[in-house]
Amino acid sequence: MAREEKLAGVFDRIDRDKSRHISRIRRLLRQPSSSQEDLGIEECAELVGKMYSEVGCEKVEVVETKGNPVVYGECKGSSDRTLLAYFMYDTMPFNEPGWKHPAMGAKIVDMNLPSGKVKSIVNRGADNTKGPLAAFLNSVEACCKSEGRPPVNLILIAEGEEELGSPNLPAYVRKDKKRLSRSDACYFPFFGQEAAGGCTHFLGVKGVVYFEMTSSGKRWGRGPQEFAIHSANKAWVDSPVWRLIDALGTMSKDNGNEILIDGFHDDVAPPSKEERGLIKDLAKRIDPAGFKRTLKVKRFMAPDDRPEELMNLFTFGTTLNIDGIWGGYMEKGSKTVLPHEATCKVDIRLVPNQKKEKMMPLVRRHLDAHGYSDIMLKEIDTGYDWCSMSVKAPIVQAMLRCYRAFGHKPEIWPTSGGAVPFYVFNRILKLPFTMGGIGHSALPHSPNEYMVIQGNKKVASLTDTEKFNVRFMDEFARGN
Amino acid sequence: MAREEKLAGVFDRIDRDKSRHISRIRRLLRQPSSSQEDLGIEECAELVGKMYSEVGCEKVEVVETKGNPVVYGECKGSSDRTLLAYFMYDTMPFNEPGWKHPAMGAKIVDMNLPSGKVKSIVNRGADNTKGPLAAFLNSVEACCKSEGRPPVNLILIAEGEEELGSPNLPAYVRKDKKRLSRSDACYFPFFGQEAAGGCTHFLGVKGVVYFEMTSSGKRWGRGPQEFAIHSANKAWVDSPVWRLIDALGTMSKDNGNEILIDGFHDDVAPPSKEERGLIKDLAKRIDPAGFKRTLKVKRFMAPDDRPEELMNLFTFGTTLNIDGIWGGYMEKGSKTVLPHEATCKVDIRLVPNQKKEKMMPLVRRHLDAHGYSDIMLKEIDTGYDWCSMSVKAPIVQAMLRCYRAFGHKPEIWPTSGGAVPFYVFNRILKLPFTMGGIGHSALPHSPNEYMVIQGNKKVASLTDTEKFNVRFMDEFARGN
Repeated sequence: MAREEKLAGVFDRIDRDKSRHISRIRRLLRQPSSSQEDLGIEECAELVGKMYSEVGCEKVEVVETKGNPVVYGECKGSSDRTLLAYFMYDTMPFNEPGWKHPAMGAKIVDMNLPSGKVKSIVNRGADNTKGPLAAFLNSVEACCKSEGRPPVNLILIAEGEEELGSPNLPAYVRKDKKRLSRSDACYFPFFGQEAAGGCTHFLGVKGVVYFEMTSSGKRWGRGPQEFAIHSANKAWVDSPVWRLIDALGTMSKDNGNEILIDGFHDDVAPPSKEERGLIKDLAKRIDPAGFKRTLKVKRFMAPDDRPEELMNLFTFGTTLNIDGIWGGYMEKGSKTVLPHEATCKVDIRLVPNQKKEKMMPLVRRHLDAHGYSDIMLKEIDTGYDWCSMSVKAPIVQAMLRCYRAFGHKPEIWPTSGGAVPFYVFNRILKLPFTMGGIGHSALPHSPNEYMVIQGNKKVASLTDTEKFNVRFMDEFARGN
Repeated sequence: MAREEKLAGVFDRIDRDKSRHISRIRRLLRQPSSSQEDLGIEECAELVGKMYSEVGCEKVEVVETKGNPVVYGECKGSSDRTLLAYFMYDTMPFNEPGWKHPAMGAKIVDMNLPSGKVKSIVNRGADNTKGPLAAFLNSVEACCKSEGRPPVNLILIAEGEEELGSPNLPAYVRKDKKRLSRSDACYFPFFGQEAAGGCTHFLGVKGVVYFEMTSSGKRWGRGPQEFAIHSANKAWVDSPVWRLIDALGTMSKDNGNEILIDGFHDDVAPPSKEERGLIKDLAKRIDPAGFKRTLKVKRFMAPDDRPEELMNLFTFGTTLNIDGIWGGYMEKGSKTVLPHEATCKVDIRLVPNQKKEKMMPLVRRHLDAHGYSDIMLKEIDTGYDWCSMSVKAPIVQAMLRCYRAFGHKPEIWPTSGGAVPFYVFNRILKLPFTMGGIGHSALPHSPNEYMVIQGNKKVASLTDTEKFNVRFMDEFARGN
């Protein structure tokens, strides 16, 4: 009972500090921190450090890396368990058209969701993920103000390059391994509810490798070398664009759905028994039509009446996707040119037990073996490895108990399909990890990104999001 | 003797009116007439009409079409032979960077060519082809002033949509067929000398068909329908970009050099005996290294020591070229998206006896037969048919005599490889045709486009260009 009383005290603090907490969130959101444009990064790192101190951290460091700084914080807790909370303080740019409210205005607006009326803050980073970062700090402050300390020792890591692919995070973690290794687990808080109120808990993420493939006349030694020439010359001059098409053609068939790169699937592990069980369970409950509506997709690669096949595709599928392709004349009309080069961007999604370090060499070897040693490969970012947890892991069970405590029964997916750099903590520091939380936000990377602060019957309010964080720390403190 | 005396009189007139002639050229060049931007078209058509009158045409009409007007003129000559001169008064846009002198300034500048020092006018259209148009009008004026009339009846046709692919020229010619049919032949004057002074006479042009191929999720009914979605979804959503790659892959192999479209080569005629002879002759004299330097190409599709094979490729090769391709994310960095569509621009070059009307249906049938009925084809412009003349044709012989009269011995190529809408006159009006002239100009479609007005020992001056036109009319008048 002492435990629930303590929690009740913290929860009461959260309720009473609501407007103060909203102010902190708006303050953080209003500080630009667009890493792709290097806009406001230093200032935002300083602000995050200041907020760490403000909410009760004894130790705060803005740690320089080869790129943007990592903001490190420590907050002593009332148990001997240590939780590493991972945040990102950088955001996508916010200069795209379509914002109905200023992207840095942190305006509070009324919204109608499928679940009912809510009040939200509209701002870049509200969803992804300065909103959840500030909400977590609010939770820490409430603990410190009410109980003197949070239930667990906290190590806070906020990186400023997530939107650049976290290029310097692995090196930072390796360098700071000693003190980071005191952690027992890693947590990434976000608002995990959909607009309708539903909740999904992801046990893991896929890995990703991203690269550019360029066919260049110069490198090839054939075709135009320096610029596009009149296309009448195609009759006696080779085409680097056709060469790129041919090279891509050796890498897959069936519209990209069958990957032909030798060795590509070698490390792919069959789904575990637990995963197969989760998929069977999900297959009974997912609504393919709902996903199709959201994604504006008319037809998945498997029919809607085979939900298990669909879930298997999404969960266990490794992919070779063309993110973009360009070359030659791309404007209106009929300029007749034989281009000197063409490029495409490709991403590979990795599933257990594929290894990101092996992928670029595999692609290179494939191209070489097919006579395309001139096709240039340029890896963009450092890539992420996949990682995943068992549903039975204590930290996952702690999360699930919290969801239940707040009246939610999340669907459990083996993977989010996306890529988050948990592998850094999971592989380098060997930490179990979990991610999620309640509350709702949406439109990351898009105009009018928002986070709900006052919810409805189905979507949690900010106060409940913050209470969830506290309960999670408490569950975790109890050795779960 | 009377004939050469008359010519000498006209030539003298040309020499004496030199500065007046240069003024006319500069006046025409300074009037913008960019058809792609619809800039100055009406004004330029008016100006051309005014110049027709100025130089001696009795009849001038600015004829409306569905697009830009055609400027029609008639000038009675002193023989019963009638020459149709084809011109274009439109130009490419001129707002690209890189102009060292104003693109509409018609500045006279000193230049160093491989053949020596020259004076040139720098302006958009100087080469392509308002310069040659105004020079021809100067020749007509000199005839009228010196002899009262040119040696032949002239029908002048200046179109304003050549840079748009002459979409309305065929309809105009069909509509005005009656009076145009009085012509005995068609002539397209241009400055035919290279910077080093060499001269090439082209007996014909290839045809061209230009189209866009689009793979769209919406049309396909698979893949993203309306916008690019997160590429994690590639695991269960199809890719319209890969589909375009696959479809292109069925259309050719060997880097685009082997065209696999069924029926594509059916109408291709073997080279005639005359053409084979010309190629053999050319093969002895061409310098592949020189072409490679100009085109910045390191290696042709055949080795340099097989010049006959090279000339066969260039002359008789029908091609399927990708002019441009685009889709998805084309900026810096690693945005992970599954695009909803991708497009490429393709041009086909036609050789005897391929028919432009057959090409789009062949491509459509090919795609349908390979299961790509969803891939959209959109023809850009109306295309041109090939056309060619025998070297023995009287009009060609007349041209060759003129070259010799001015001390030039042109190389004779069966085709220029490029596309000019001569088929309109050659097929619809059944006219023999020829093209060329002396003088030098360069950089069409590029900054610093220029035409020489004062030449050197190898490159003709404007006065000689104009005299060449007069001599050609005279040769033609004599029934050749």
